[in-house]
Amino acid sequence: MSTNIRPIPNSHNCSQGLLERLDAGEIVIGDGGFVFALEKRGFVKAGPWTPEAAVEHPEAVRQLHREFLRAGANVMQTFTFYASDDKLENRGNYVAAKISGQKVNEAACDIAREVANEGDALVAGGVSQTPSYLSCKSESDVKSIFRKQLDVFVKKNVDFLIAEYFEHVEEAVWAVEVLKEAGKPVAATLCIGPEGDMNGVPPGQCAVRLAKAGASVVGVNCHFDPMTCVATVKLMKEGLTAANVKAHLMTQPLAYHTPDCGKQGFIDLPEFPFALEPRIVTRWDIHKYARAAYNLGVRYIGGCCGFEPYHTRAIAEELAPERGFLPQGSEKHGSWGGGLDMHTKPWVRARARRDFWENLHPASGRPYCPSMSKPDAWGVSKGDTELMQQKEATTEEQLKVLFGKSFKSK
Amino acid sequence: MSTNIRPIPNSHNCSQGLLERLDAGEIVIGDGGFVFALEKRGFVKAGPWTPEAAVEHPEAVRQLHREFLRAGANVMQTFTFYASDDKLENRGNYVAAKISGQKVNEAACDIAREVANEGDALVAGGVSQTPSYLSCKSESDVKSIFRKQLDVFVKKNVDFLIAEYFEHVEEAVWAVEVLKEAGKPVAATLCIGPEGDMNGVPPGQCAVRLAKAGASVVGVNCHFDPMTCVATVKLMKEGLTAANVKAHLMTQPLAYHTPDCGKQGFIDLPEFPFALEPRIVTRWDIHKYARAAYNLGVRYIGGCCGFEPYHTRAIAEELAPERGFLPQGSEKHGSWGGGLDMHTKPWVRARARRDFWENLHPASGRPYCPSMSKPDAWGVSKGDTELMQQKEATTEEQLKVLFGKSFKSK
Amino acid sequence: MSTNIRPIPNSHNCSQGLLERLDAGEIVIGDGGFVFALEKRGFVKAGPWTPEAAVEHPEAVRQLHREFLRAGANVMQTFTFYASDDKLENRGNYVAAKISGQKVNEAACDIAREVANEGDALVAGGVSQTPSYLSCKSESDVKSIFRKQLDVFVKKNVDFLIAEYFEHVEEAVWAVEVLKEAGKPVAATLCIGPEGDMNGVPPGQCAVRLAKAGASVVGVNCHFDPMTCVATVKLMKEGLTAANVKAHLMTQPLAYHTPDCGKQGFIDLPEFPFALEPRIVTRWDIHKYARAAYNLGVRYIGGCCGFEPYHTRAIAEELAPERGFLPQGSEKHGSWGGGLDMHTKPWVRARARRDFWENLHPASGRPYCPSMSKPDAWGVSKGDTELMQQKEATTEEQLKVLFGKSFKSK
Amino acid sequence: MSTNIRPIPNSHNCSQGLLERLDAGEIVIGDGGFVFALEKRGFVKAGPWTPEAAVEHPEAVRQLHREFLRAGANVMQTFTFYASDDKLENRGNYVAAKISGQKVNEAACDIAREVANEGDALVAGGVSQTPSYLSCKSESDVKSIFRKQLDVFVKKNVDFLIAEYFEHVEEAVWAVEVLKEAGKPVAATLCIGPEGDMNGVPPGQCAVRLAKAGASVVGVNCHFDPMTCVATVKLMKEGLTAANVKAHLMTQPLAYHTPDCGKQGFIDLPEFPFALEPRIVTRWDIHKYARAAYNLGVRYIGGCCGFEPYHTRAIAEELAPERGFLPQGSEKHGSWGGGLDMHTKPWVRARARRDFWENLHPASGRPYCPSMSKPDAWGVSKGDTELMQQKEATTEEQLKVLFGKSFKSK
Repeated sequence: MSTNIRPIPNSHNCSQGLLERLDAGEIVIGDGGFVFALEKRGFVKAGPWTPEAAVEHPEAVRQLHREFLRAGANVMQTFTFYASDDKLENRGNYVAAKISGQKVNEAACDIAREVANEGDALVAGGVSQTPSYLSCKSESDVKSIFRKQLDVFVKKNVDFLIAEYFEHVEEAVWAVEVLKEAGKPVAATLCIGPEGDMNGVPPGQCAVRLAKAGASVVGVNCHFDPMTCVATVKLMKEGLTAANVKAHLMTQPLAYHTPDCGKQGFIDLPEFPFALEPRIVTRWDIHKYARAAYNLGVRYIGGCCGFEPYHTRAIAEELAPERGFLPQGSEKHGSWGGGLDMHTKPWVRARARRDFWENLHPASGRPYCPSMSKPDAWGVSKGDTELMQQKEATTEEQLKVLFGKSFKSK
Repeated sequence: MSTNIRPIPNSHNCSQGLLERLDAGEIVIGDGGFVFALEKRGFVKAGPWTPEAAVEHPEAVRQLHREFLRAGANVMQTFTFYASDDKLENRGNYVAAKISGQKVNEAACDIAREVANEGDALVAGGVSQTPSYLSCKSESDVKSIFRKQLDVFVKKNVDFLIAEYFEHVEEAVWAVEVLKEAGKPVAATLCIGPEGDMNGVPPGQCAVRLAKAGASVVGVNCHFDPMTCVATVKLMKEGLTAANVKAHLMTQPLAYHTPDCGKQGFIDLPEFPFALEPRIVTRWDIHKYARAAYNLGVRYIGGCCGFEPYHTRAIAEELAPERGFLPQGSEKHGSWGGGLDMHTKPWVRARARRDFWENLHPASGRPYCPSMSKPDAWGVSKGDTELMQQKEATTEEQLKVLFGKSFKSK
Repeated sequence: MSTNIRPIPNSHNCSQGLLERLDAGEIVIGDGGFVFALEKRGFVKAGPWTPEAAVEHPEAVRQLHREFLRAGANVMQTFTFYASDDKLENRGNYVAAKISGQKVNEAACDIAREVANEGDALVAGGVSQTPSYLSCKSESDVKSIFRKQLDVFVKKNVDFLIAEYFEHVEEAVWAVEVLKEAGKPVAATLCIGPEGDMNGVPPGQCAVRLAKAGASVVGVNCHFDPMTCVATVKLMKEGLTAANVKAHLMTQPLAYHTPDCGKQGFIDLPEFPFALEPRIVTRWDIHKYARAAYNLGVRYIGGCCGFEPYHTRAIAEELAPERGFLPQGSEKHGSWGGGLDMHTKPWVRARARRDFWENLHPASGRPYCPSMSKPDAWGVSKGDTELMQQKEATTEEQLKVLFGKSFKSK
Repeated sequence: MSTNIRPIPNSHNCSQGLLERLDAGEIVIGDGGFVFALEKRGFVKAGPWTPEAAVEHPEAVRQLHREFLRAGANVMQTFTFYASDDKLENRGNYVAAKISGQKVNEAACDIAREVANEGDALVAGGVSQTPSYLSCKSESDVKSIFRKQLDVFVKKNVDFLIAEYFEHVEEAVWAVEVLKEAGKPVAATLCIGPEGDMNGVPPGQCAVRLAKAGASVVGVNCHFDPMTCVATVKLMKEGLTAANVKAHLMTQPLAYHTPDCGKQGFIDLPEFPFALEPRIVTRWDIHKYARAAYNLGVRYIGGCCGFEPYHTRAIAEELAPERGFLPQGSEKHGSWGGGLDMHTKPWVRARARRDFWENLHPASGRPYCPSMSKPDAWGVSKGDTELMQQKEATTEEQLKVLFGKSFKSK
């Protein structure tokens, strides 16, 4: 397949914007999730998941951007996930006070632009769901939170905007409405599965509401595995068609297998976030995902939590025939295991073929572990006391109550 | 446990050498494997597994060194794995001709030293098994291969030397004998399990031979999972005691579960190297490993393929009570899941406790996959035609023969 | 729980009929499936699955009846599954010619009555789906097939009638219409899951059609595991309520776990019928099933393929508080593992408690096997040539075609 | 394979004794375990596991004998497992007082002989390990226990004797010495694995001691899965050869997969005895076992706990080419799935072939369960207070102590 396709410089069409590319039927490859990748590298704290590394360790953030660029990503998403002021001061977080949200957002924009300019990549400024919404703040309060981040994105002149990782379509619509004020293209993704958002709004209806609010690209990100995300976006596509509303489609799934998730996705799994390893998808799983997304008509195809650069490269390699070129990173990868023809051991060289990897069911090496988990299902939703956020650190007393609930819920 | 232990600067005792530290009973934390980590990031090719990235992408290699340093590693091992001249030209590899082994080794030394100087770390120059040995070259031929790398290490003045990843104790002894010529401390690790080396020499006997050849530290690295490596080093310890030979002990295991491996370790598993994801160990597995290794008396405790910086940090966190301090990377990690007390969702905050993570059996999310695999066992060993290495690229015809063997062997 | 409940004679109310019992809110426990149990014992051939053992090995059939009676069953179902004339001559079956359908049905009635009279049990004459329907024969042809069996049931004066194991509600309605001619109570069960019958008729609608055709008891049997059957009958109950149609509810599920089945149930699983062992449910699974069925309002609670007498006893033990007595078979069983207090080994005595068994996730002892399978899904349905039945034995040529299809379908 | 091999009457050589058959190189097929099979049918209580059903439910015992005979068994082992007087009164057992050991043993002999005479079968009187030995009674006390059973066997004129299910070779030797007094052939099997008996006596040494004590046939039964038993008997064979001692070999394994067992076998598994279902072997597993045992030179090939008649039939079918005939039970079984050519569904007919079943890895249908368990390992052995047996029922207080230990041991 790829024998005639060679890695080429990342600069063939960098003057084009997101919508020009998508309108032309071009594939846009998104980058992968930053918080999980940087947590493994030691720069993000699991729990708050905030992106102060943009200020504290810019070289680490820059390096990850470069790796995704090299892997074939056409978008450098600013590392501004959870960089809203209310999240940066939530439950004892020091970032709002010691650094400030503005500085984090600015630093993230600068790094993304620097790396984007090294190749054919666009810069996307991103906002995500807020503690304020979860704590039942008003629409204008929540919108003003988004607007603070948008001010930075406008000042730094990002190429387009993404509202992502929303569990409630209502909050996502508010975000889109704010982002539209800048006059740049807006993409919007919910972290939902086929069951719909936390209030039970089905995916098709969510997509229509987002598009009507002004999103040119709609889809899903995070919370579910690749094939589940494709299934959800299929429902979105059907909803858009039925309502005769036009929008481009986008998927940025987890790189974790989640067949056992409920409505709220992988955060309900007991393995979240520190024992997800056995669920990590292989590059071959990504080949299947990229092909399925493409066949459905999705043209903005990226990843989220769990994605490492080699996963992103697998999207680019699967779609190389359609795109006509391989990413730079493929210099260090033989498609479908081809590089193994240089291995010293003959039985490993014998794995240098597509049918071997395509048909392998990889073992876990964990005979004492099950293959599926029962997700937590506490049944709390927006408005419940336990979901109210607070500036103060969680107290031992508060934890004790939760630990007790957890034991009982077994 | 760790409430009174705080991250401290990495500079408390950088003037001490390896043996001073070990003789004083101090714990020395090794870094993790570079080839697998950099393969995921796009800078190393699986198959040849050679370290030309030291020249081609020094920033990527430097960043990984920094991450391991930040995670608590006391050793920066030069990225010179498989950097022998014969490997760099094996089966069509371009590095020997286009770059040269000397330049790769020099660049790797410079990067390691640069980062080591940023903290409390020693630089170790490393050599590993050679295609020449596998192809039945003479002792003096093989030794001259090692000597070329050693020349660079001496010129760059590394702090100590490591002979690692040897399947045959005979070749490892040759390597130790060469490395000893430099007058620096030598550590030696085999990639063997409890069954011993490829010729069936038991671990205890291997350890004695390595120590007698001049290695001050002996142990195992790669090929097997953490607890199997501890079990193998236990056999080495017993062998040393029985022979009344003194040596420090060292473990640098895989970060993959391998209960189903035979004598040759994980390269025989069908999942090697592109579908090992479900086998990746969690940070909690590493806690158990670090404790078991420490309890056995191992004081040089590190990792190999599959290790990410968060795995290395877990060694440092588990042994923080003994060492009296946490690594810098723990700024972004609450021990035993503590950081989850800042999560927005109450059922995730309920996981902010040791007993939750310590007792969890993580699911694979892969109900169509088994928990163990039958390893390849082709029964070829040194001397077999199929193990002879060649400078020319593997031909399609050669591959076809191997593919046929592989199908039949099912 | 069971300390005050003692096994009592099986004769407390044997004068009451099925509907009197159900109308009074009494629990009626069905027996288990005969074809699978007798296949294991050597008297039924897997493939044809016909009940000639009633003639050929009456002592084996009688013994199994007695075991289910002793286990607590209130119904002795005649061993007349697949005893229609067209099935007994299908694909080379010798029974029609060498024995005759009439003799098989008569012998089965005699044995069932003999054992029923030894305790508190009713005799139910049963018919099941026919090759004729699958081969597109006319309604009157199919009905005449059922009528032949009914003639025997009337002559032998069974207590009530069961139309069971129908994949198409249309054929089941025909069966009910015929059975109603005898003026005895009729129960009807489909072998369907939540997706409905083979033509996609949903469970709720199926239930209404069966009840309107004259069935006093409706439900499901076979093809799916216990909890799936409860879920399907829940849909039936909702359909009946919505249509304001009254009927008693009945479940006779498999004793195999089938989370991976499609619409056609366990016959599509590659493990069917010779490798289902790892799926066999424990007695504790049956406790959960019996409780769930009871809580839903099901009062005719039995089993089908895979059920052994100890599974049926588990229904009776779980519902002993409601019924006020234990079955005779509980003489040899301490509820919830209680009998283990007599074991010689202390760690086994330590398992003599409900919470141990209730919370155990039993291991398969099969680390090379997956936990789920991909079912066959050939997409053939009534009318397809491959589903046409024939009197002649399947030829080697016909098999060869099927084997080829099977390989391709992988 | 079996097309020319037809079921024949069971009477071809019933005049020959055990040793004549074995000396002639003939295969002798043992029957399966009775206590587990009859527990499922409702006639044996798990915990005490005593065989009073021989008196209480003779028709159930007789039926099971007939099924094993029909399946191809050449031996009817008297249902006298655990029928020693001290076991029949252990921990509150009523059998010694209400029935008497003598009556149980006599009834078992009568039933076995009745069925054996219906075919080509020998009657074997069996004794097994005693509570007296475990409670540290003297050699003469223990021997007098065995002698009481032997008196019945002599009176009833069984064809040969079996000492089986011994965990300590010392007690087994005592049993053999007693049984030899009758002048009949003696077979002896330990319930041990490759690690040897409870005192660590290796299998090879155990075999030599049993043969020297007078056993003409030695081997293993129960406690481990088929292939483990073959591996253990291989060690026995090597021990006999090394010591130049002659004996025939015998295997009667579990029908449960036990890859995770320690020295004491399946009773240490948490699934013992009420959740072993997912471990039950398929008939195809038995084919492999029978072939492996035969290839090792074992000629007395049978089964133990978990064996159902279809498992025994699978031994007979695998070895039909060597024996020249199929068992009667194969009238209702097409070898290697052949009977499926009569199935109504084409995709099931497509499974009527050996390669399908031989290569299938059957799924458990249990995605929430692991594939292996950690066995209990309390570390108590003969002499420990907790292993002392008592006539009185286990008290609640005694259980409470054990429950506490069990929880702590997690």
